[in-house]
Amino acid sequence: MAASKEEEKTVSHRDEMEKEQLINRLKRIEGQVRGIQKMIESDRYCVDILVQISAINAALKKVSLNMLGRHTNHCVSDAIKNGNGEEAIAELMEVFERFSKS
Amino acid sequence: MAASKEEEKTVSHRDEMEKEQLINRLKRIEGQVRGIQKMIESDRYCVDILVQISAINAALKKVSLNMLGRHTNHCVSDAIKNGNGEEAIAELMEVFERFSKS
Amino acid sequence: MAASKEEEKTVSHRDEMEKEQLINRLKRIEGQVRGIQKMIESDRYCVDILVQISAINAALKKVSLNMLGRHTNHCVSDAIKNGNGEEAIAELMEVFERFSKS
Amino acid sequence: MAASKEEEKTVSHRDEMEKEQLINRLKRIEGQVRGIQKMIESDRYCVDILVQISAINAALKKVSLNMLGRHTNHCVSDAIKNGNGEEAIAELMEVFERFSKS
Repeated sequence: MAASKEEEKTVSHRDEMEKEQLINRLKRIEGQVRGIQKMIESDRYCVDILVQISAINAALKKVSLNMLGRHTNHCVSDAIKNGNGEEAIAELMEVFERFSKS
Repeated sequence: MAASKEEEKTVSHRDEMEKEQLINRLKRIEGQVRGIQKMIESDRYCVDILVQISAINAALKKVSLNMLGRHTNHCVSDAIKNGNGEEAIAELMEVFERFSKS
Repeated sequence: MAASKEEEKTVSHRDEMEKEQLINRLKRIEGQVRGIQKMIESDRYCVDILVQISAINAALKKVSLNMLGRHTNHCVSDAIKNGNGEEAIAELMEVFERFSKS
Repeated sequence: MAASKEEEKTVSHRDEMEKEQLINRLKRIEGQVRGIQKMIESDRYCVDILVQISAINAALKKVSLNMLGRHTNHCVSDAIKNGNGEEAIAELMEVFERFSKS
């Protein structure tokens, strides 16, 4: 399903505002992961750390769901309109299965 | 359940080797989160990014499970031996539930 | 998104063979749920019961994923081709989210 | 970890009231699974069926969590008090991992 090199140059998977939003969210998540390291260094109580890790997982899943929605609205929709939806949908289902188990 | 300030000074929730291992794993995860940011900046295909995010989630869950095991073997076991297991187990179940939904 | 009464009469969401397959799978799952009841009646070991419940959950998720794939290939694809994909995709994402948390 | 045959006769993993409660919940879940079969037979909309399946998964997870709590409060606690907690905890973590992926 990956776009060819030629296409990569012209097709944009997200616009500038979306990129910025996603990167900001991921920077926050990166900070949360560093926070866990500090909690371990300062020997914090296990349960407090586990609650923080669950929060990171939830934040990452939110990013994934957001990206899945956009992907379906754009890439998958375009594939369907162009008559090659089946492959795009099979790929979507694989991603979804992986996501639901992670 | 959090240990009091007094206790915090003397009780250690993990030994030095464990701390180092956990921190190394989290540094790797932090690097993976930065990797996602670069993938977004360079406009990579959504599905490739989603697969990477699932990998981070799986890595975080592995850290959590590892920590849950240690927590049960130490803090929860000690509480049970000291006759106040009920509270520690209720807390453990809450963490379980939160974790399984994240 | 639910089809109107009028449409319900003519639109079929799955063909006869698919229906039969799905119902057979669900009958097997129903039998597994009855099996758990017997395990509890005969006072079986908790862990053995928990492993069986996980197996039922996994079987139900497989049915869901299968149905999600078909739904996307038919209902969602048709909506996209008819120019009203946005609503169908929003609904799909909601189902995804609910499913991934259950 | 399974109790020996000899023990099976004397050890009870749950009391009569708990058994009854668990069996009643499972009968309700069995009825929900039969309900899905009827929804498929009468060709109901995919999304409505998927929402119902998610509800069954959630109900089964609630039964599991309930049973996990009891198991930890009884079997695991007893094992810890008798000095062989390590095996019981390793088993608990395995069950938990399986549960969180199902």
